[in-house]
Amino acid sequence: MSTNTDDWVERIRGGDVRALARAISTIDDGRRESLELLKALFPLSGKARVIGLTGAPGAGKSTLVDQLAREYRKQQRTVGIIAVDPTSPYTGGAILGDRIRMQAHHADPGIYIRSMATRGFLGGLARATTDVATALDVSGKDLVLIETVGVGQDEVDIVRLADITVVILVPGMGDDVQTIKAGIMEIADIFVINKSDREGAERVEREIRAMQTLAIRQDQWTPPIVKTVATEGKGVPELAAAIASYEQFLAKNDLLMKKKISNWRERLVEMLREALLQRLLEERINEDDLKRLAAEIAEHRRDPYSLVEEIVGSLAVAEGKKPHHGGTEARRKTKAGAFAEPKAKS
Amino acid sequence: MSTNTDDWVERIRGGDVRALARAISTIDDGRRESLELLKALFPLSGKARVIGLTGAPGAGKSTLVDQLAREYRKQQRTVGIIAVDPTSPYTGGAILGDRIRMQAHHADPGIYIRSMATRGFLGGLARATTDVATALDVSGKDLVLIETVGVGQDEVDIVRLADITVVILVPGMGDDVQTIKAGIMEIADIFVINKSDREGAERVEREIRAMQTLAIRQDQWTPPIVKTVATEGKGVPELAAAIASYEQFLAKNDLLMKKKISNWRERLVEMLREALLQRLLEERINEDDLKRLAAEIAEHRRDPYSLVEEIVGSLAVAEGKKPHHGGTEARRKTKAGAFAEPKAKS
Repeated sequence: MSTNTDDWVERIRGGDVRALARAISTIDDGRRESLELLKALFPLSGKARVIGLTGAPGAGKSTLVDQLAREYRKQQRTVGIIAVDPTSPYTGGAILGDRIRMQAHHADPGIYIRSMATRGFLGGLARATTDVATALDVSGKDLVLIETVGVGQDEVDIVRLADITVVILVPGMGDDVQTIKAGIMEIADIFVINKSDREGAERVEREIRAMQTLAIRQDQWTPPIVKTVATEGKGVPELAAAIASYEQFLAKNDLLMKKKISNWRERLVEMLREALLQRLLEERINEDDLKRLAAEIAEHRRDPYSLVEEIVGSLAVAEGKKPHHGGTEARRKTKAGAFAEPKAKS
Repeated sequence: MSTNTDDWVERIRGGDVRALARAISTIDDGRRESLELLKALFPLSGKARVIGLTGAPGAGKSTLVDQLAREYRKQQRTVGIIAVDPTSPYTGGAILGDRIRMQAHHADPGIYIRSMATRGFLGGLARATTDVATALDVSGKDLVLIETVGVGQDEVDIVRLADITVVILVPGMGDDVQTIKAGIMEIADIFVINKSDREGAERVEREIRAMQTLAIRQDQWTPPIVKTVATEGKGVPELAAAIASYEQFLAKNDLLMKKKISNWRERLVEMLREALLQRLLEERINEDDLKRLAAEIAEHRRDPYSLVEEIVGSLAVAEGKKPHHGGTEARRKTKAGAFAEPKAKS
């Protein structure tokens, strides 16, 4: 770690907002220096509770999240908010409403809000969101609230990997909610029916109850249903209480660590998948190769299955399986490094 | 290729429905033998035109796709339909409506319909859909129609990688369409306003036109807008004509091959990503390792960034970069194999 990174991390730890903002931008842009930064930040993180909140477009997520943040501020707890925006990967992400939302909490250094836009192909956003949560954690935020629109697998994955997941429904969404349901109903630790002064709130509640009788969770927790009118702040203390009671449940039954381990298992696989590909593309197959191979496949002169098998099969991934004798010692050394007992917690 | 695979492929080519159904199931389940099968099928494919159709839930996609299939049957062209279902990755996919839809085309061996459910984490479905399209292609279908709900990145990616992409809108969807828009409006080669007898059809058309004045496509094509009432078959011949005219445009400007190459470039990267990870997990890091490493990360005794760097850095991906002298010859040989001029088209 360079002295620069050291200083930077110290400033983030000390609550320096500009250092934090620069860290988040570095992570969000996926710049090279973010790796060194994250290596330094990670051991210092782990104190914040990460809460994911998701719901259909128009469910009033941002208003609810803002109100929940206010509630936590009343409890003297600091809050980081990550708002994930499902904007187009083709036109580039538009950062919406950050400034307006920040203004509402303008005088309060105990709240930090950041929007992130959906990017490119597959999974990059979930990784970046987790990393930004780590930075907010190190900056001393007690709670990190991640809000997404629950319409895509990518967005569902983001909140699913939080410590606690809140699913926000509203009355009168009809078929669309039914569709979204399929993907996100199972991941809710807590349900919110927002805009619950509208007609149909009881029906939504009945539907959730009916669904709950069909599927019992492994951990035996029955997700409570909290009714809110976020624009008026109604039900927000009750939501905070429901979250707190699930936290207690997790702590009492030693489930939080299990959940974190299971989440990290998935994240680790994702990180490996991405890092393997990056290494292959940087060191072995360049863009020209890719285009030429793609052309040969498109012209049906080559089949992609044999090609992939050939490329991947030629790599010395396994120990002792491929006849790459010279590499054995180096790999054994690395295996010892990666799989040895870790160093003590710093 | 084994004699069994040979026979199987011959039966698929010959139009044997049971052989085709078994092939699709094998691909859909991701069974081991699917790789041998796909290697054998791929060189025989490339004749079918693949059309992706997407739209919000409730846009009437299946009805429209069924009507379009009928229209193609009138033109004596055979049709395969792949209906992708965005059901939960948690409860397992429910295959909906296949039988009902098949019954409608019951007497006609020129139509084959198959549903596929959304699965697991990231990208597997897009790959499987492409592979099923290959099987339908080899079975002699002139057209393969892929329908998905355009709410998630995964579903968008599926239709985006078709030869021709149709985006289906309906009047009166309000904010939800606006949200979906962001991701899928850019990928439309043809727009359909279905249920166009409803109020608001003109407004949707104006909105599309307004959007089109803002963004000019690289290929200079202006996506036409076709109004349909799928339940009555209205506008369906016009949709087929619009698709045909885009096909002519693609052929005249030599754009289809460019599009196919660009699609295959993306698919190839995805396949490499997945295959690299599989190899690592099968041969080097087992489930116990993963869980233990995840636990160490969750307890903050190890940082995931250094760990991934260490694991991936230790692999002999690059030629001549790592000191694995023994492997050089084997790798050079493989490089020659993978990067050499391909064999002549079969």
